[in-house]
Parts: sequence; C-alpha cells; structure tokens
Amino acid sequence: MQHILILGAGRSATDFIQYLLDQSLSHDWEIVVGDYNLALAQEKVGSHPKAKAIFFDLADDDLLQRSVQDADLVASFLPAHMHKTVAKACLAHSTHMITASYISPELKLMDEAAREKDLLFLAEMGADPGLDHMSAMQHIDEIKSKGGDLMSFKSYAGALVSPSCENNPWGYKFTWMPMNVVLAGQGGAARYIRDQQFRYLPYHRLFTITDTVKVPGAYGELEAYANRDSLPYCERYGLADVPTLIRGTLRVPGYCEAWNVLVQLGVTDNTYRIADSHKNTYGQWLRSYLPAKGPENVEELLASFIGESLDSPVMERLRYLEICSDRPIMRENATPAEILLDLLMEKWKFADSDTDTLIMVHEFIYTYKGQTYKRTSSLASEGLDHQHTAISRTVGLPAGIGARLMLEGKIKARGVHIPVIPEIYAPILEELKQFSLDFEESEEIYEGTP
Amino acid sequence: MQHILILGAGRSATDFIQYLLDQSLSHDWEIVVGDYNLALAQEKVGSHPKAKAIFFDLADDDLLQRSVQDADLVASFLPAHMHKTVAKACLAHSTHMITASYISPELKLMDEAAREKDLLFLAEMGADPGLDHMSAMQHIDEIKSKGGDLMSFKSYAGALVSPSCENNPWGYKFTWMPMNVVLAGQGGAARYIRDQQFRYLPYHRLFTITDTVKVPGAYGELEAYANRDSLPYCERYGLADVPTLIRGTLRVPGYCEAWNVLVQLGVTDNTYRIADSHKNTYGQWLRSYLPAKGPENVEELLASFIGESLDSPVMERLRYLEICSDRPIMRENATPAEILLDLLMEKWKFADSDTDTLIMVHEFIYTYKGQTYKRTSSLASEGLDHQHTAISRTVGLPAGIGARLMLEGKIKARGVHIPVIPEIYAPILEELKQFSLDFEESEEIYEGTP
Repeated sequence: MQHILILGAGRSATDFIQYLLDQSLSHDWEIVVGDYNLALAQEKVGSHPKAKAIFFDLADDDLLQRSVQDADLVASFLPAHMHKTVAKACLAHSTHMITASYISPELKLMDEAAREKDLLFLAEMGADPGLDHMSAMQHIDEIKSKGGDLMSFKSYAGALVSPSCENNPWGYKFTWMPMNVVLAGQGGAARYIRDQQFRYLPYHRLFTITDTVKVPGAYGELEAYANRDSLPYCERYGLADVPTLIRGTLRVPGYCEAWNVLVQLGVTDNTYRIADSHKNTYGQWLRSYLPAKGPENVEELLASFIGESLDSPVMERLRYLEICSDRPIMRENATPAEILLDLLMEKWKFADSDTDTLIMVHEFIYTYKGQTYKRTSSLASEGLDHQHTAISRTVGLPAGIGARLMLEGKIKARGVHIPVIPEIYAPILEELKQFSLDFEESEEIYEGTP
Repeated sequence: MQHILILGAGRSATDFIQYLLDQSLSHDWEIVVGDYNLALAQEKVGSHPKAKAIFFDLADDDLLQRSVQDADLVASFLPAHMHKTVAKACLAHSTHMITASYISPELKLMDEAAREKDLLFLAEMGADPGLDHMSAMQHIDEIKSKGGDLMSFKSYAGALVSPSCENNPWGYKFTWMPMNVVLAGQGGAARYIRDQQFRYLPYHRLFTITDTVKVPGAYGELEAYANRDSLPYCERYGLADVPTLIRGTLRVPGYCEAWNVLVQLGVTDNTYRIADSHKNTYGQWLRSYLPAKGPENVEELLASFIGESLDSPVMERLRYLEICSDRPIMRENATPAEILLDLLMEKWKFADSDTDTLIMVHEFIYTYKGQTYKRTSSLASEGLDHQHTAISRTVGLPAGIGARLMLEGKIKARGVHIPVIPEIYAPILEELKQFSLDFEESEEIYEGTP
C-alpha cells in the first residue's frame, strides 16, 4: 500500500486529484487530500473508497509532520511560497514530492540533500511551466540527437476563452488569475535573444513589439508579446548558443495594441493608492492620466492622446471597458490596477457556459545535413466544462501522470528536477494523448533566414 | 550644562556639527559625536574643547541606551531607517530628538507617546525636506492670515553644480547621491494637482512634461519635472482645497529631454541583473534596447530610434556619455542602472574644484481683495567649498538652528513635528540670513489665469 498526500484542493488541483483517484482503483493507493477549507477537500474527494479529506493548516507544524510522515509522495498545490516548508518536511521524513509551480531558489538548494536521501522533488509539472518544457524538450532532444543544429526556438502559450465563446472586442476573458493579467510584464524588462542579440524590452514598450503566430483550430492567427525572462531557458533546455530563443504570451490580434494604451496611460500600476478613489467616476479618474489640454469629453481626449479616431478598433476596445464613462469607482483607496480590474472582472467575465482553451505553439528552425527546416508543434486544448477547464486539465494531468510514474518507481532521477529529461517527459506526453492532449506536428523545408 | 548627542558624522552632518560646535562656546553645552567610523567623528570634532568623538554602533543597544541617557537632545544623521530605533531610546530616556530626514510612519506613530513625555521629535529639518517647508509656510501663513485665497502653489528645488563649473552638455554633476539621480521617479507615478484635476504621471512619461522656471543668478531659466507625490502637501501645508499644487525637481534645460531617451530605452532599470555584463561594450549592451532593424552603427540606430539627427542637442548629450561606444562594461552581473551609473560617475563627476548650488523657488498665485497676485520666493545658495557644500549647509544650518532653539526652550510644540509652524520656521529663516541663506521675494499683479 502506498500513501499519497495532496496539499491544497483548489481549482488547479481538480484534475490532478481526479486522475489519482481514478488510478487508485487499480493501484494499492490511499489518498489524503488536505485543505484549510475542509469542505473543498471533501467535495474533491467525494465518497471515493480509497481517499479521505482532512483539514490542513501549514501553520500547524505538528499536523504537517504527522501528515507527511505517513506519505510515500506529497503533492503540493498550496500557494507557491509554501512549497519550501512542505519540502523541508519531505526531506525530514524521506518522502518524494511533486508540484506544478515554478522551482524556487530555496527548492533548488535542496537538490543535494534530496539526492543524499534518494528522493525526487519534481517541480514545474503543470501546463506552463510543465507541459511547455516536456513538449519542447522532446523535439530539442530529437533534433540534437540526430545531429541537427537548432537556430531558433520560439515558444508561445496562451490561456484564452474558446473562440466559440468570444463575444467581446478584446477576444479575451479571465480564465485564470485576473490580477496576474493586469500586472503582466511589470517588474523588470522582458528579456530574450534574437539573432544572437540579447533584447531587453521595458514594460512601457512590451506590448508594442509582437509576433504573429499561426495556431491550430478556429483562432487561425494570434499575437504574442514577450513573456518575462526567456534567457534562463537557454540553460534549462541545454541551448547555450542558440541564436534565437523567445517565449511569448498569446492574445487575440488587437489585444496588445489596445492594452498598450492602458500601459501608456499608467492605469495598470499597482504600486500606489488613490485616496478617495470611490468619490470619482471612471471618466474623472482617467482624465488624471491624460493631457491637461484637449477636448472636454474624456473619450475624445483619450482618442486624441493616442492619435486614433473614435471609431477605430482600438477605441472600440477601450470604449467597451467603459473606462471613460460616468460609472462610479466602487473601491476606496484603491490602486489604479485594482480600479481597472473591477471593470475588467465584469467585461471579461468567464461565464458558466463558456469554455477555455489552452494554446501552446513551439517553432523550431534547425539545420540538418545542409538543409534548413522549420518544425512546428502545436496544441489547442479546449476545456470540458467549468470544472474541468483546459487549464485545470493541462496542469493536473501532467502532474498526475508524473505522480503515478514516481509511485511506480519508473523515474530514476533523484534530487530536484523539472521535466526536461526523457524518462519523465516521454511517458507523460504519450499518456496525455489518451486525454486528447496531443500536439500537432508539422515540418517543412525553410527558405527564409533563421 | 546641556548634553547634545549627534549620531552620524557623514557628509550631511558637517555644517550641523560645525554650527553647534561654534554655538557651544557661548552656551553651556557638551557635544558628543558618535559614528561607526570613529576617525570620521574625530575629524569633525577636531580638538574642540566642548566636544568629543565616540565610536557608535546602533546594533550595540547598551551603547545606544547609555549614550541617549546622558543627552538632553539627540540629533540623528544616521541612515533614515535607523531613526526609529534612536527615537525609541529617546522616548525611553525622555530626550528630545531632531533629524533632517523624512518623517517615517513609525515616527509619526510616536506622536502621542512623545507628547505624554513632554518631548519634541522634530523631523524634516534639512534642505529638502526642511528649508522647503519653512520658506513655503512663511508665505502660505502670511497670505492666509491677511485673507488671501491661494489659487496655485508651485515649489521647485534642485541641487546642481554651480553655473561657473558647468562644463558638460547636461549642465549636471553629481553633488549628492548619484544612484538616487539615476532612479529618480521610479516606483509609482508622479502625482500632483493642477487646475483642480489630479494628475498621475507614470515614470515613462515623467520627463516629457516639464515646467520652465525662472531662477535667480546665472542659471536664468531651469526646467522642472514633477517630484514624486505632491498630494500629501495639500494636507501638510493646510491647503486642502488649493486648485494647483506641484512640487518639481530642477534641471538645466535639455536635461529632461535627453534623460527621457534613457528612460524610453529602459536603461535606468535597477530591478534585474545582466549575466556576463562585463563581457560587453557599452555599444553592444545599448543595442539590446534598440530595434532589431536599422543602421549597423549603434549611434545611428539610436538617433533613428528617437527620430533625431546625429548633430541634434539630445544626441550630443547622449554621445557625451559614450553610451554607444566601444568602452567595456566593468561590472559583472550588473543592473542596467549600475552599468549606466558607472559612466555617469565619470562624466558627471563633481570635481574638487567645483562648487554646488542649491536652488529653491516657490511660486504662489493668490487672490486678495478682488486682485490676483503672483509672488515668487527664490533661493540660490552656492557652496563655500567641497566640505561646506550648498547641500551640507542648507541641510545642516536649519537643523543646527532648530537644535539650538530646542535646547534654549524656545519651541513649545510637543510630539512629532515637521517645521511648518511659525515658532519653528520664523526664527530659523531669520537667522539663516546671517549665513547668506536668504530668499529673494517679488510680487506682481497677475494677469493670467491662475
């Protein structure tokens, strides 16, 4: 009998828990799901014969130690900053660990200690980070092993509302953390390498430089802006000398141009609070970011500030947000980002009847035996419903399969890892096909400059 | 006999210590100057009969308590974050305190406790903050008391190299904290009120909107960009309903336009580090912030990016910095701001033979008996030499006079204060005239819109 402890029963754990519950029937597993919200854990477990829900509070160290002590594998779906406390308990009780979150510096430092105890701490096992590593590394390893020379690697991902549910001019709805979308790109320049030249793009220019990306399914083409810091991926993916490496975030065409207006105005800022914000309308507030001179009407002033006509697509998108309107601001002492978010939560609401789609596109350009090739590997995965969203499935299923492989002793790696090694990514990518999570692959001779 | 404890003997304390040493001869004072660098404290004290230097380390709580216990007044010229520890000791030993730094939230919270112990904690007693409050409030109180109605208050300050020592196209040298100049305006929008409209200006637009300000002396006219958050001054100066209140930082004309290029590029960012920065030249590094397409030559690429000709004044200023040159970057793993600072430290070096000048200009527009007036109050104070700089004098002398008034029992206020009350600012402004720190005043009937 093996024991699995799952900490955190929130949205992102839904399909992970489901997968392990399903698998537990054919394995000799016992699953404990712990959450601070016991009802949530109970709901996820239901009346499953091999599982039980418990109240879990990370601040209760006794409870943590007792829970981890009994487990053969701990999966942490707690907020990311909590993983290190869980990891320390796993070290103390010689228990393997898995998480879908970014590897933290603290976790990295546990590598040697984990090896010494013959343990595997596997991080970044979700969608992005996770599935992006797996699907990219499969091709990178294959191209390298046959002797190809990678000239360019571009990797794009986006969590979008399904095209059939698009009904606003932004083509966007909040399928995931709304505030993260408002703050996207803040805090340090975007960084990548293109044609052997490092590129640093400050936040106020981030949304002005976009790539056009062909994607599978009804989207056709999407736009991508640079996703934070791509440079560490040169090392992570073993591509120290690759001339081009860019990771991008996908949006429906037109989104970036319109979002850039909000960036230029300064209304995505979350670092200061506006006293008496609730005593203003959105239009009064927006005027504070616009030139003193110009039309009386705020919408006309905005259009003149950005040099667009009132009936331009970008103004249509901004008008849709009612950001120039007489609507009262509801929050007191709020930051600009919070004031903006309140409108967006309504305008970009992911309705119960909507489904989401996760898009992932890798573009490889490589030379092989004197010929240049362009290979594309793409996924467009639609959510099943509001519980089993594309995000929950693409986070939970790779992590779930990873957990199963660990319990079955099929992964020999020890220490702290992310899924960039074949013994991890290969069986996971294979099994994901059963869940309709399979990448479309295509390759052609490439005539352009790499 | 009264005892004065001065903590911190750095640059900004020079003229403060000097003033109190001079005054101590005619008062029954004993002065102790404590610094972690004992030699520095000894140098400032010399062989003065009424003073001694001690080693001081804030981490040594016994030493702190013993030192404060003996004192009637403690002056803290330590780094700003240390004042609260000093203030707590002052509370414990019923000792008055004075500092030239911004009042901190922690210090503010000690107001009631200080009152209960009949103590005065006087903060913001330097140049800016300090002299700016004093000189502004003298006029604000006078205009209010005669029944005038203030329509606009603009307050500008700048620490510049003296015009006679200007010999670079920026008209600027580092007379004060260099990194603060590189980071100026970062971290939250600039905020002010103009014509009853709040204005929030994000960092990437800060240097594009400037006021032109007439100043005394050889400068003639300077440019001002908005200085951080002006809005709290509405409350601090008792101007809750003033239609216009702006605080600005003064620079030589042309500086802001050229500095804005560095902001637009993104090279003033201090939030991320560049691996292997020392393996690049400045030109190679700068190219990372410029468009991929365009001229081969970095300087031409920069000119084309900003839409200026190579011989334009703005390009002349940028060329002077050698930011497009083949000079190697000397720092490893440096932030953009650090890389830039290394050049600026050389290009904007405040030479031993240079003097600095502190400029302060207040513009008041007010109505009185049906007439509108514009009043200007201006100071241009030049440093005496490299020790007794304009900054050291305008920080140290207001604080020194304030300390003397406290010791003489001439300030009745108790609790935590800044110098916005007449019993503090009036005698200080009067005595400062003896040190050639006197404001030029002018007033005229104002015909424009306020």
